[in-house]
Amino acid sequence: MNPWGQYAPELVTDLYELTMAESFLREGMNSEATFSLFVRDYPEDRSCFVSAGLQSLLQILPDFRFSDESLKYLVSLGKFCTELIEYLRDFRFSGSIRAIPEGRIFFAQEPILEVTAPIVEAQVIETLVVNMIQLDTMLASKAARVSAVASGKELIDFGMRRTHGVDASLKAARASYLAGFAGTSNLLAGKIYGIPVFGTMAHSYVTSFHSELDSFHAFARAFPDSSVLLIDTYDCIAGAFKAVEVATTLRNRGKKLLGVRLDSGDLADLSRKVRLILDEAGFPEVKIMASGNLDEYEVERLLSSGARIDSFAVGTRLGVSADAPYLDIAYKLVEYEGRPILKLSSGKKTWIGQKQVHRFYGADGKMNFDRVCLLDTEVKEGEPLLEPVMQGGQRVGEPESLAQIRARFSDEWRKLPEKFRSIHPGGIYPVEVCQPLKDLDNKTARLRRREEVEDRLEKGIGELGNLAARLFP
Amino acid sequence: MNPWGQYAPELVTDLYELTMAESFLREGMNSEATFSLFVRDYPEDRSCFVSAGLQSLLQILPDFRFSDESLKYLVSLGKFCTELIEYLRDFRFSGSIRAIPEGRIFFAQEPILEVTAPIVEAQVIETLVVNMIQLDTMLASKAARVSAVASGKELIDFGMRRTHGVDASLKAARASYLAGFAGTSNLLAGKIYGIPVFGTMAHSYVTSFHSELDSFHAFARAFPDSSVLLIDTYDCIAGAFKAVEVATTLRNRGKKLLGVRLDSGDLADLSRKVRLILDEAGFPEVKIMASGNLDEYEVERLLSSGARIDSFAVGTRLGVSADAPYLDIAYKLVEYEGRPILKLSSGKKTWIGQKQVHRFYGADGKMNFDRVCLLDTEVKEGEPLLEPVMQGGQRVGEPESLAQIRARFSDEWRKLPEKFRSIHPGGIYPVEVCQPLKDLDNKTARLRRREEVEDRLEKGIGELGNLAARLFP
Repeated sequence: MNPWGQYAPELVTDLYELTMAESFLREGMNSEATFSLFVRDYPEDRSCFVSAGLQSLLQILPDFRFSDESLKYLVSLGKFCTELIEYLRDFRFSGSIRAIPEGRIFFAQEPILEVTAPIVEAQVIETLVVNMIQLDTMLASKAARVSAVASGKELIDFGMRRTHGVDASLKAARASYLAGFAGTSNLLAGKIYGIPVFGTMAHSYVTSFHSELDSFHAFARAFPDSSVLLIDTYDCIAGAFKAVEVATTLRNRGKKLLGVRLDSGDLADLSRKVRLILDEAGFPEVKIMASGNLDEYEVERLLSSGARIDSFAVGTRLGVSADAPYLDIAYKLVEYEGRPILKLSSGKKTWIGQKQVHRFYGADGKMNFDRVCLLDTEVKEGEPLLEPVMQGGQRVGEPESLAQIRARFSDEWRKLPEKFRSIHPGGIYPVEVCQPLKDLDNKTARLRRREEVEDRLEKGIGELGNLAARLFP
Repeated sequence: MNPWGQYAPELVTDLYELTMAESFLREGMNSEATFSLFVRDYPEDRSCFVSAGLQSLLQILPDFRFSDESLKYLVSLGKFCTELIEYLRDFRFSGSIRAIPEGRIFFAQEPILEVTAPIVEAQVIETLVVNMIQLDTMLASKAARVSAVASGKELIDFGMRRTHGVDASLKAARASYLAGFAGTSNLLAGKIYGIPVFGTMAHSYVTSFHSELDSFHAFARAFPDSSVLLIDTYDCIAGAFKAVEVATTLRNRGKKLLGVRLDSGDLADLSRKVRLILDEAGFPEVKIMASGNLDEYEVERLLSSGARIDSFAVGTRLGVSADAPYLDIAYKLVEYEGRPILKLSSGKKTWIGQKQVHRFYGADGKMNFDRVCLLDTEVKEGEPLLEPVMQGGQRVGEPESLAQIRARFSDEWRKLPEKFRSIHPGGIYPVEVCQPLKDLDNKTARLRRREEVEDRLEKGIGELGNLAARLFP
């Protein structure tokens, strides 16, 4: 049995989404709400994000239903009233979504996606929305960093075995392809997303033969035009000499060795020596691939130290976004029944209201700054980033292909000024907040603070007597 | 459409597994091989691992098949010969697996799992095995650290929205329950694994009402015996006063408020103040739950600084194992056709041969040291850790329940000496390697080094002439 068939999207939900739904329905509260999804802040060394994950979400939402089996489970919990179960039985997502298309660059504090729907619907899909957008966006943003330092060298995703499950491995392959990688070793991603697949051989292959040379010859017999020989099982230099023998045999047969792979040791030094051997032996066309604990920092270090590497297989550290394995992403209610909404929790700023992001470019065509405005503010300048992607529970327009999104990223990346493309960013990209939004935000915050906090504390302290001194020393 | 239904386990495979398979079959090489799965080294601050993921793997392997659709994709790649496709069409995993049962403690360099099967079969399942065991083991090992510092306080997994996909969210819920958590917010995990589910309310719920107090009363109306009120939306102290009002209303109706939740600010200070308010108001039984960027370090800090917190909701940092988001796990060929196998790649030690781990206990019943031996060495002392779990492609024994595994972990954890349970470990647990294994390993390494490296370099250097000085300065 394939346990992944059990992944019912309607249960990709925290329990509280449904307890809140029950209370909303009981109170007769199911008016239109808008939730805004945004990343609060940059992980260390990050200066931008790459929007990703939207197409996967849009693939699920129109058919989002509670199956009988899922409902049976919910009933079995004994936590919910019959009315909620009946409501869920008929559940459809009927709302609208505006979002920044996949492949575009965005920045902290900008809405990536806004959901407008009856509040129960917008709430029920929360966990799914956050999970899907955060994972892909985190991975695409990480992969873009590797692309940024690769100087056009070939990049391949090799992370499948250590990603956090199958779902994550697929998203890593897709996100890295989106951000300029040539392909992946992941066959399932190859099948589902049509991404080119790449592979070489494992140490186990080499060691299962009586000698390394035997293994190389055997592999070349099976794949006389596409063999990449892993040469570090015993010693890279000795391995390179053996690769030359195989390359010679292939050449004599009118075929050619595609490359060799280094997977351990001092990759910069070894790649120069292996290049020397291959060149001296008359095989300048045989490529050198490197793998093993690579990430953007290591690729940058290798290239700047003169490594002779043509292709980088980037695995675990990309696939888990090792230095920043999560984004501080939030899905916050910003409007309900037309009222602007905010919370005051310390250290967690959310901008009020339905919003749009406008992007401004310099004379050189590069991104200059962004401005966040209330959606209903009439703004004639700048390029609006959020576009309608769902209306009345249906997709707006056709699904976008991965090729389209990849091309958009490539175009977009060129427009990002160099200092924000760097993996050691030279500053924070300017994101302005327009005055009417600031004014509304301040006004609402003042009101909430007076009603919910100040008046209440005054009353509470009055009733407290000597407790006050212990609470507010 | 539910895209997760497309997750065909047979394609959870790196391309090279199948190119190697093609070459093996072409060479007539499909003899019995043993692969050993182990973690090379500890991430920072780690001193042990908790075995997990085995049951999920054993659920998949007996039915592991290549579907027509998957084969069609493989054919479409144009990389494989007809013989391989026909072989895969009939593919069954017919091998044997020995493994350390889930919930047991193990250490770096110890085999967790050994697969013995025709080499092509053992190779084809590699990516799946590594991915499934590493994720669950990493998460259970992380969760055990949170349990270790929680002093018996209630722990709940709240990580679903920021885990790396749905697969990871399920594994995080399961692994943390295995390691002593009380439950999860994750409904899908609740359904699939029968884990207790918990939840409170979101800030969006509170802010959608005209006042915080209205929202609290509304929630209490729906859940008069199980409400946990989120009190930090505007101000925790003001929120606590409001919670007292609701608790009073509930008490007057013969019901009771279950708890309040703090999600921001100085949790230690706020929890003491909120406790004071609740106690003074006559509600000592109302629990305080805390959430927000928690992990084992933060839980330890909070408890040691006198926080009055009864329940910790641990989210993102547990769900992605934020400080150690991957294990240095490897699946290595250690025996083929009865020959012991090793590689010499620098910095990547693999112990040769089929192995067993024997555990030795002190007079106090605590773990004292482990010893790794060759499987065919007659060892009469110590407790063997790896057990047969598959034979001839079929499971040995019944599937283990999560409750069984959870109880095993609890028992096992008590036997682990305090200094290795600490999240600031006081040393490395002793793992000995028995002399016959060391001898065989050394002998094989010497032989391989002479045949594969020294003889070859001598020959290569002889042919090189003046290139030698540039390669070996």
